[in-house]
Amino acid sequence: MPADHYPSLDGLFHPASIAVIGASSNPIETGWVKRLLDFGYKGKIYPVNLKAKEICGIKAYPNICNVSDSVEYAILNIPAENTPQAMRDCAAKGVKFVHCYTAGFAEDGTEQGKQLENELAQIAQNNGIRLLGPNCMGVYCPASGMTFSEDFPKEKGRIALISQSGAEASRLVFLCQDVNLYFSKAVSYGNAVDLDAPDFLEYLAQDTEIDIIALYIEGVKNASRFMTAVKKCLERKPVVILKAGLTANGANVALLHTGSRTGPRSAWQDLLKQTRAIPAQTMDEVADILQGLTRIKKLAGRRIAIVGRGGGIGVVATEICERAGLKVPAFSSETQKQLIQIRPDPGAMLRNPVEPKLGLEGAADFYLKGLPVIDRDTETDLILIQMAVDVYGGHTPDLVQNVTENVYTLCAAIDNIKKPLAVALFTGGHIDTVQAVAAAGDILTKAGIPVFSGVEAAARAVSKIYGYYRHLEFQL
Amino acid sequence: MPADHYPSLDGLFHPASIAVIGASSNPIETGWVKRLLDFGYKGKIYPVNLKAKEICGIKAYPNICNVSDSVEYAILNIPAENTPQAMRDCAAKGVKFVHCYTAGFAEDGTEQGKQLENELAQIAQNNGIRLLGPNCMGVYCPASGMTFSEDFPKEKGRIALISQSGAEASRLVFLCQDVNLYFSKAVSYGNAVDLDAPDFLEYLAQDTEIDIIALYIEGVKNASRFMTAVKKCLERKPVVILKAGLTANGANVALLHTGSRTGPRSAWQDLLKQTRAIPAQTMDEVADILQGLTRIKKLAGRRIAIVGRGGGIGVVATEICERAGLKVPAFSSETQKQLIQIRPDPGAMLRNPVEPKLGLEGAADFYLKGLPVIDRDTETDLILIQMAVDVYGGHTPDLVQNVTENVYTLCAAIDNIKKPLAVALFTGGHIDTVQAVAAAGDILTKAGIPVFSGVEAAARAVSKIYGYYRHLEFQL
Repeated sequence: MPADHYPSLDGLFHPASIAVIGASSNPIETGWVKRLLDFGYKGKIYPVNLKAKEICGIKAYPNICNVSDSVEYAILNIPAENTPQAMRDCAAKGVKFVHCYTAGFAEDGTEQGKQLENELAQIAQNNGIRLLGPNCMGVYCPASGMTFSEDFPKEKGRIALISQSGAEASRLVFLCQDVNLYFSKAVSYGNAVDLDAPDFLEYLAQDTEIDIIALYIEGVKNASRFMTAVKKCLERKPVVILKAGLTANGANVALLHTGSRTGPRSAWQDLLKQTRAIPAQTMDEVADILQGLTRIKKLAGRRIAIVGRGGGIGVVATEICERAGLKVPAFSSETQKQLIQIRPDPGAMLRNPVEPKLGLEGAADFYLKGLPVIDRDTETDLILIQMAVDVYGGHTPDLVQNVTENVYTLCAAIDNIKKPLAVALFTGGHIDTVQAVAAAGDILTKAGIPVFSGVEAAARAVSKIYGYYRHLEFQL
Repeated sequence: MPADHYPSLDGLFHPASIAVIGASSNPIETGWVKRLLDFGYKGKIYPVNLKAKEICGIKAYPNICNVSDSVEYAILNIPAENTPQAMRDCAAKGVKFVHCYTAGFAEDGTEQGKQLENELAQIAQNNGIRLLGPNCMGVYCPASGMTFSEDFPKEKGRIALISQSGAEASRLVFLCQDVNLYFSKAVSYGNAVDLDAPDFLEYLAQDTEIDIIALYIEGVKNASRFMTAVKKCLERKPVVILKAGLTANGANVALLHTGSRTGPRSAWQDLLKQTRAIPAQTMDEVADILQGLTRIKKLAGRRIAIVGRGGGIGVVATEICERAGLKVPAFSSETQKQLIQIRPDPGAMLRNPVEPKLGLEGAADFYLKGLPVIDRDTETDLILIQMAVDVYGGHTPDLVQNVTENVYTLCAAIDNIKKPLAVALFTGGHIDTVQAVAAAGDILTKAGIPVFSGVEAAARAVSKIYGYYRHLEFQL
């Protein structure tokens, strides 16, 4: 068997048929059957319910064994104590993948919970079933129409997410949707009694539909297998890891969440030493790094050119970048000479940061005339544009339209820019500002420009991406 | 002279009359005259313009000396080289305060700029004029109708802002407005050739309309006077300092901005050692701390009870709090016993964080039944509520209304809660989510509950406030 031949999980993400054991007959509740139907799952669905004859217009069965056709995948949505029998039924039916949605196993901390979990694992192993969970949300795969939230986007992307937490997985999917970034596959795998992070990593390393892998991990059962799998992925694509449970009470809470032993901090620092995995502390940061990796394809150095409001805003932006491990050097004297032609007025900052004229028109003018100058500057590697919608335009009623026009000018201006670019969009709670920022973000991200919620988020992500491209060692 | 008797700056914030020297006659531009009129300045305005007979319907004068009545305050909006003569005219007219808006002085780095600046300072000193600037935006005081932005709120608050940067000042005013927090007085004072931070501090220490003072400082000319003035304020009210120019290039940019020498890092760490001043690194953080100081009046300890989505979101929230220097201990066994009554379902996290049932109804139910239990818990000091609008409700069209109802329930539930509370409102770029978050934030902050843009911002602010109340030494 060649080194990278691993059992396929194709059927986990693209099952031909799904039985929902414990399908809800409550018409006002969005159960698994309705969710799959609404999301456009194309395979066969077999609701299993002791009493209902029909669920969502589909014939229901009292037991999976009553289904006459073969069933590839089953979702268990029944009380924990009934899951072993359901697993045996699935085995009898020849089911290949079981997703145990039900909670109340080892994470409860009870002896009974642990025993039940062991029983499930044993049945799975004896019958060649691959078990997902228990205590997890399962699979999201827009191409096959599988999802664990009816609100998830149907758009397909090129990112994979492997997460022990369903809520954190949902959060990342929504955070990414907000910046027009989409997933190919996501899996929430909870207590991991059978399928565990290394299984997914080994499979996704070879998946040509995946460019980047993100992980939310509380604990791993086999550290060396995990390390090997992460290394295998990193030969082909970047891996971003949110390792939860590294602080004292964080570890206690993780134990209650998925029954995971979170492992010593030193072991995780060792992982970062031995691999190029990129660490993140929150899902917001993961989303920022995913955007950076997707939209900043090259980064020659860590020297940032900042374009935006000068004055104190320029000073603070400079310091945020420097604190994040980036540099904000003065532009070359040639660049500064050319910038003076564009901004001859007294008081204009030109050294770096460079400040366009005030107002949206001033900014638009600078995008067209100034960005090509900065693109040729020899002292900087990436252009960070600060769009401070609030400070530029104030809370005016036509802010959305004005900002939108401004952003289209920016998109036109950067068509010929060779340096990588990032935009920091300040926001605020005022509804017109917020709408203007959302509209601007939508246009920019659709044009392939990474957009961050402020200079702090942008600097942090750019610094991580630089470290990844340059093989620097990250600190937890 | 008693120790706290300082020259009054009443006339700076409440002048009876203002001459605008270099008043704009361009009808489509918002000049200083139009800005003051629109903002509701109640005193007399005297536009000074060599050619115009009338500006914004007010009689204009070719020179301030042509005004027959007395003039208390003048704004200089003329080329830098003409400012000394205008200052002499102001002296002849008996003007008490001059705000030199014009830039192009020492911050230019030219010998001519420095000489001009010295000349202004000399004329001011010789004639008993208090000079604000040059190179600054001036005064914002809703009570008197003075402003440097037509978009600033007219609401009066109890915060003062002393800022060398006009743009950072504007940003803070808008950030605070977004959370229904308002200012009594703000001043942008630029190059500080006469009026400097200690002058404002000494005045505002005694101002009974001010509860909290925020500072944006690039450099100070007299460090020991500054230290004394900060100490004087801190005897009566908290002081929050954003010290800009502490990183290598940050210091270079600050020098170009206001001509300030930013001083060694050690001197600023020494200030924090000797005073209870609260340091911040960005205006977002300043706004968060101002909210905390205003809305969290007492804080017995740093032990946080977290209410909100459990699972991985609870784990990550715990770690964010711990990394910020807070603690997230388990609730007392009595509390946990009572919480089981409210949330008997398997898989529910009750240790701390505690997870309400899913959905907005589940959250509302927990606010009413669970918060009183946590209020009595002996192991925690502050309740942090995570409202993850995205994960709860998804991007549904009726999200604003549903979230609004939920928030009113929360407001009702906390009426009898004695522990301090904070809310972390996750946001996203989706417009319905963003609107729901904005609506929720508006209701909560109007009810006096501090609202933060996420757990990270909340934890950072709460940790700073705790440090202030407990006289802990802050690190830069």
